Amino acid sequence: MDAVRSAYRGDAELERLLQGAGIDRSVAEIRDLIAGVNAAPDGEHPDRWLALVGEDLPAELATQLRLLRRSIPHPAAPEAGDHAARLAALRAELHRRGLDGFVIPRGDEHQGEYVPLRANRLAWLTGFTGSAGVALVLADKAAVFIDGRYTLQVRQEVDNAVYEYRHLIDEFHGDWAAGLLRTGQKLGFDPWLHTVGWVERMRNALARCGAELIAVDDNPIDTVWHDQPPAPLGLVTAHPERYAGKSAADKRAEVARELERAGTRAAVLTQPDSIAWLLNVRGSDVPCTPLPLSFALARDSGEVDWFVDRRKLAPGLEEHLGNQVAVRPPEELGDELDTLGKAGAKVRVDPGNSAVWIFDRLHVTGGRVEREADPCILPKACKNPVEIAGARAAHVRDGVAMARFLCWLEQEAPSGRLDEIAAAQRLLAFRREGELFQDQSFETISAAGPNAALCHYRVSGKTNRPIENNSLYLVDSGGQYLDGTTDITRTVAVGEPTAEMKRLFTLVLKGHIAISTVRFPGGTTGSQLDALARQYLWAEGLDYDHGTGHGVGSFLSVHEGPQRIAKMHNPQPLLPGMILSNEPGYYRTGSFGIRIETLVLVTAQEVPGAERPVLGFETLTLAPIDRRLVEPSLLTPAERDWLNGYHARVRQEIGPLLDPATRGWLEQATGPV
Amino acid sequence: MDAVRSAYRGDAELERLLQGAGIDRSVAEIRDLIAGVNAAPDGEHPDRWLALVGEDLPAELATQLRLLRRSIPHPAAPEAGDHAARLAALRAELHRRGLDGFVIPRGDEHQGEYVPLRANRLAWLTGFTGSAGVALVLADKAAVFIDGRYTLQVRQEVDNAVYEYRHLIDEFHGDWAAGLLRTGQKLGFDPWLHTVGWVERMRNALARCGAELIAVDDNPIDTVWHDQPPAPLGLVTAHPERYAGKSAADKRAEVARELERAGTRAAVLTQPDSIAWLLNVRGSDVPCTPLPLSFALARDSGEVDWFVDRRKLAPGLEEHLGNQVAVRPPEELGDELDTLGKAGAKVRVDPGNSAVWIFDRLHVTGGRVEREADPCILPKACKNPVEIAGARAAHVRDGVAMARFLCWLEQEAPSGRLDEIAAAQRLLAFRREGELFQDQSFETISAAGPNAALCHYRVSGKTNRPIENNSLYLVDSGGQYLDGTTDITRTVAVGEPTAEMKRLFTLVLKGHIAISTVRFPGGTTGSQLDALARQYLWAEGLDYDHGTGHGVGSFLSVHEGPQRIAKMHNPQPLLPGMILSNEPGYYRTGSFGIRIETLVLVTAQEVPGAERPVLGFETLTLAPIDRRLVEPSLLTPAERDWLNGYHARVRQEIGPLLDPATRGWLEQATGPV
Repeated sequence: MDAVRSAYRGDAELERLLQGAGIDRSVAEIRDLIAGVNAAPDGEHPDRWLALVGEDLPAELATQLRLLRRSIPHPAAPEAGDHAARLAALRAELHRRGLDGFVIPRGDEHQGEYVPLRANRLAWLTGFTGSAGVALVLADKAAVFIDGRYTLQVRQEVDNAVYEYRHLIDEFHGDWAAGLLRTGQKLGFDPWLHTVGWVERMRNALARCGAELIAVDDNPIDTVWHDQPPAPLGLVTAHPERYAGKSAADKRAEVARELERAGTRAAVLTQPDSIAWLLNVRGSDVPCTPLPLSFALARDSGEVDWFVDRRKLAPGLEEHLGNQVAVRPPEELGDELDTLGKAGAKVRVDPGNSAVWIFDRLHVTGGRVEREADPCILPKACKNPVEIAGARAAHVRDGVAMARFLCWLEQEAPSGRLDEIAAAQRLLAFRREGELFQDQSFETISAAGPNAALCHYRVSGKTNRPIENNSLYLVDSGGQYLDGTTDITRTVAVGEPTAEMKRLFTLVLKGHIAISTVRFPGGTTGSQLDALARQYLWAEGLDYDHGTGHGVGSFLSVHEGPQRIAKMHNPQPLLPGMILSNEPGYYRTGSFGIRIETLVLVTAQEVPGAERPVLGFETLTLAPIDRRLVEPSLLTPAERDWLNGYHARVRQEIGPLLDPATRGWLEQATGPV
Repeated sequence: MDAVRSAYRGDAELERLLQGAGIDRSVAEIRDLIAGVNAAPDGEHPDRWLALVGEDLPAELATQLRLLRRSIPHPAAPEAGDHAARLAALRAELHRRGLDGFVIPRGDEHQGEYVPLRANRLAWLTGFTGSAGVALVLADKAAVFIDGRYTLQVRQEVDNAVYEYRHLIDEFHGDWAAGLLRTGQKLGFDPWLHTVGWVERMRNALARCGAELIAVDDNPIDTVWHDQPPAPLGLVTAHPERYAGKSAADKRAEVARELERAGTRAAVLTQPDSIAWLLNVRGSDVPCTPLPLSFALARDSGEVDWFVDRRKLAPGLEEHLGNQVAVRPPEELGDELDTLGKAGAKVRVDPGNSAVWIFDRLHVTGGRVEREADPCILPKACKNPVEIAGARAAHVRDGVAMARFLCWLEQEAPSGRLDEIAAAQRLLAFRREGELFQDQSFETISAAGPNAALCHYRVSGKTNRPIENNSLYLVDSGGQYLDGTTDITRTVAVGEPTAEMKRLFTLVLKGHIAISTVRFPGGTTGSQLDALARQYLWAEGLDYDHGTGHGVGSFLSVHEGPQRIAKMHNPQPLLPGMILSNEPGYYRTGSFGIRIETLVLVTAQEVPGAERPVLGFETLTLAPIDRRLVEPSLLTPAERDWLNGYHARVRQEIGPLLDPATRGWLEQATGPV
């Protein structure tokens, strides 16, 4: 409509409108701002960036700003382009710098799962878009290392004439490099993109061939990536205490006490979700997760230095933060580390997720580095009563959307006209109608038939499949609500499932119920519980190649540590208030995939006669589990009771919030088995 | 009889007899030998030491040797004595050496569980006889650190006026020392008695107070312990290939290949059971475990240098070892490490169980230390087919002894005249009648009523309880047979058990069955399975404070790594051929204890339709589980089937080997529930 009614009237007119609104910014500054905005996802709020220009903008100014933004192209998808030419350019740049090779990881400066466009160096260079991987470029060889999830995808995305494919887990890429480099050769790496552990391992690997590992001051990819997007400028807003449950001042005091206890002057916070939790703010720099990409320094005085691009803060946010929080430009982090180092202060840095750059900078000036966990991680993981109430409420709304979707799907799917994309869009539409909905919590996995056998499948135009009759459909999705983050998987029968599908679904369900009902003493870790979810599959010689459960944030990351339920050792005991997923599955390549996922809350349990504190799980997710896929003869009476009890709860809590038709469907879908 | 018939006729006569038999040893040498023999346990073979003098000794010489030995006193129990005086003597010695404190661990030079009398420094100094602990002596404070198992025992054994009691696990003893020592003070330790990990942790702890950690050349306890026993001289004999299943030459070649693969010149072997396995020998230096205390160096050539006191080798053993094995005096180990160090050789040392002395010695001369697991540990843990067949056969004989014992107990116990000691002696007598029986595999836990609630109870004259009617009796015992090591616990009802006892016994049994029947994919660790054994207790808010299962050797240590089933993380996957215990329990302080223990063998399982290699457990132990304690209503049909199937197997395999009366008892004891 806008575009039809009017057009961008030029910089002079925009400048006049800005001045008229009392906004002291040049058009050049606005254009820079928009470039940053374009490098962040819009999510559900394409106009929220206008707040970065000012509050309550006059309508005419807002229109001109929107039109100006429309005239500025969005960054191209990093993976699209001539990868051979890019590799050649990188090699020329390495040669110019006297380097014999370079390591290109997938992560960013925060070692995060979601990275901004600017940090997609691996995708830009090689075309590989998976969520984990690393490339190694030498003068005459190059390789992409990927894990088992991506063995098919890498073939589609990366040119094998240019890159070898290697296994990320089975072979350390440093060993590959050590086999090719010679004494005195130099392998470069960007110290912002690797942890201390990686550097130590890499250095040991290279010691065998006598090559050197060289930290570069600036990333050579950034030199040759001419249209590299700028850092994202996603709006950062306050996260109100009615959702956060605790004031930022109280959180800062809590962290300060922990630092004081350890005799630590300050902690470097490199995790954007830790900063979001600590300061009660949320951002929009990356898709689906409200992260404000930034760094911070939490001091034992309770003061925080927040190293963030001030341009992305919502108006009034600095006042909200108060005078104990100093907003400082990101480039000043190094200076502040120098100051601490020179004072001989003990500074905590989390070795698990902090760039080696930070360690090096502190060491150079004589700082004493305490390698300990980020002090925000544990209090963030243990939700407070307000966050818990929010999680329950968000799951009721999410359950309404799921019930409407599953009812709709049952009606529409047998027609054979639905496809994966249409289903995902419909589900998102239902979620959007829920109060406090902000975004999806991750890109929906909408997977029909054999596509569901790829655990990490994401539908695209190329892979989109129709949902066929007599097949299984798997949908893994979630929402970001202001009061909580959801994540749910349901697998449903379309048409008539086979006896084999029912048997396997029921084995997965038995594992799901084992986790739902387990009680355990304080001190127990998720690693200890993992086998309970797998035991029925194991008995048949089956298994699934992913974790049983991950931690979940409160309107934050849908994958949050330190808690986890997985085969891999994790020393963190489960604590009351932690939220985790419970998601066993089974995947038959080329045929179908099964996963049943709910979120659960760790709670203290009253057990008569108990001799020790007992913990257990409260199921938060409220949506029917497809009864048509359950083979009742494989369930014990207790398992059957659990399923019927869960369904009664879903009916009771979600039913009254539905229209009569959907309610009728829910009554039938949650009937006893 | 001997003593009555004759007396020791003096040194001159003995010398004459030795010469007459062509034995070129002085009486002084024989007296030294006997002192060493007296410092080793006799076990079941009080005369085996005579072989150390010579083969086929003339009867008269043998008699004189026995009489001479009888005239030489055995070492006193180290723990008996005036501990305040000993502490004062140690402090004076520390002062003389300029030390401000000293650490006295419980372990020996091999960091072993069973230590020879000579190494019982902790018991000698403090009186504490538990199997884990450490004392710290400073100029005016001293403390004994013990874990939760020994909180009662330490009060009985250690004088609180002289030693503080501290918790070994909750508090690192280095932190306690750091809180008391001042800058520049010196804390001594014996580098033969600690691992690298301990030294690193201790040094970090002391860094906080500025005190120094000083390795001593010789242990100050040894200076003040005037009647300290010598190193034990327990007879070392060949372990025939018909039990070992593989020649020592093949084992040496296997280890050599592993070293070659890693580019390692040699491995320092500090574990006597590794050496026993590698060389196919068995010793008798410590109680219940046929360890030849010694060190060895395995080379990538397949050659082995064995640093062992030649005096304890059975006649002909060196020929049995062959010319690839060089027997060398223990004191030459250091010289050999120097030679390797100077040659710049890469030498493997297992950081988990090797004295820091070895690392330091290699470092001093420039050796390259490879911190990797002892290369014998894994092949030793995975029993070969001959060892597996031996384990099955040994368990049949052990089952016969157990059946006879349990039958006898059921007849005798209701009289109320039995006590713990009498029961243990009777069980040992039954075992002794079994073929190939060599010794107990550990001191029997014979525990009546409340004594069984102490997990690590050992009966003594002071604690001996009658086995009362209407109580539970727990017996945990095992045998060392030439073809295998056994370890079994049974808990039996004497008289009428209460409903509560039956309920708890059945919960323990359900966990025991869960482990017995679990199937799991390759790569699974014992830590992952542990919760399966505990889940039914956990559900009631109950648990047990010990591991679910430990590895077991083949006529070797009854506690053998690296495999384990426990809460604590253990990265070692379970592999076919490993033997473990399966021993969940429940303990009600002051009332009773329940434990059900069998040994299980990891085996590959044929599962139709399996998509991955499947492993499971074969139960080796063959003895009835007390049906009178089973509450059948708490068992699932599958659990009941397992119990009945197990009992049918016991009946079938053991029954035919029993006298008719015992067989009749077994028929009834193994009837279906």
